[in-house]
Amino acid sequence: MRVYLAGPEVFLPDALEIAAAKKRVCAAHGLEGVFPLDAPPPLPPAERPYWMRIYLANEAHIRSCGALIANLTPFRGPSADAGTVFELGFMRALGRPVLGYSNTAADFLDRTRAFLGADARPRPDGGWEDGEGMGLEDFGLADNLMIDGAIAAAGGVLERHAAEADRWRDLAAFARCVARLPAGGRG
Amino acid sequence: MRVYLAGPEVFLPDALEIAAAKKRVCAAHGLEGVFPLDAPPPLPPAERPYWMRIYLANEAHIRSCGALIANLTPFRGPSADAGTVFELGFMRALGRPVLGYSNTAADFLDRTRAFLGADARPRPDGGWEDGEGMGLEDFGLADNLMIDGAIAAAGGVLERHAAEADRWRDLAAFARCVARLPAGGRG
Repeated sequence: MRVYLAGPEVFLPDALEIAAAKKRVCAAHGLEGVFPLDAPPPLPPAERPYWMRIYLANEAHIRSCGALIANLTPFRGPSADAGTVFELGFMRALGRPVLGYSNTAADFLDRTRAFLGADARPRPDGGWEDGEGMGLEDFGLADNLMIDGAIAAAGGVLERHAAEADRWRDLAAFARCVARLPAGGRG
Repeated sequence: MRVYLAGPEVFLPDALEIAAAKKRVCAAHGLEGVFPLDAPPPLPPAERPYWMRIYLANEAHIRSCGALIANLTPFRGPSADAGTVFELGFMRALGRPVLGYSNTAADFLDRTRAFLGADARPRPDGGWEDGEGMGLEDFGLADNLMIDGAIAAAGGVLERHAAEADRWRDLAAFARCVARLPAGGRG
């Protein structure tokens, strides 16, 4: 089975090394990891803008995979990377298994409060809101409830691992996700 | 046609008033707006946790709609609200029209640079990276390329409107999205 490896590692200078490491974890379990930067079959039309070809390639990759593992480690804000979250929603709608991991142990509420700083304020009736009166989710989840909910609805797991110091490269929680997928043949 | 109204307005204290205003814009075009807080048919199982019932309700809402309009105004960081982005990916995978709007005129790159502040630094070969060496997208888009790409792939529009001061309630860009959908009967 092919497994789509969604995550913001694509933005790292050593993205291809991380891709190779993730693929090795998959291969040891008899699975084929598919990284967003892999060459897609078929190649998107050359006349489309570069960014659109990346989009079309990633959509084709996802459609070609039987499962998705998302790196949901918070990225430039309290939530996961937007591209990764998009891809999680896409695969969930296809009805295939979705799993996720986060190398941050803190709950979404605590992260959002830390992000907002002095703008976070308690509501008279309990709960928290931001400086514009917009509520903070307080469900003890890893991220926005659509993310945790999708993984739960798909029967997946959301592995949380306190590895902030090496959060873009630590693969312990990723490996736990891989182990939850049915093992494939060893080729 | 039913149209799912994705966006972080659900977190506002006057969410239901905004929902009503958006539904009026839809109704004037012969469409039925469906807000995430609307009662879903069928109701999710009462024994599931509250947050899971919200997830299941929103998924059922999206499946029941023929199109989705996402409020992609940046939310607690440079990108759109994670739940909204998830729903955009979900609907795109169903193959139905997706449209979006943002009440911020600045490009994604400029917003990300402003978010990072002194942590944003130019790369020797051009482009920008953050304090961890992770690249910044620089395609002149409204958000992460998966968001702009999905809307383009679906033949939708991403309306951008400089309305920062009233960005959670200004419906001009939303109305432009509604106008791009086929008009329905007036009941």
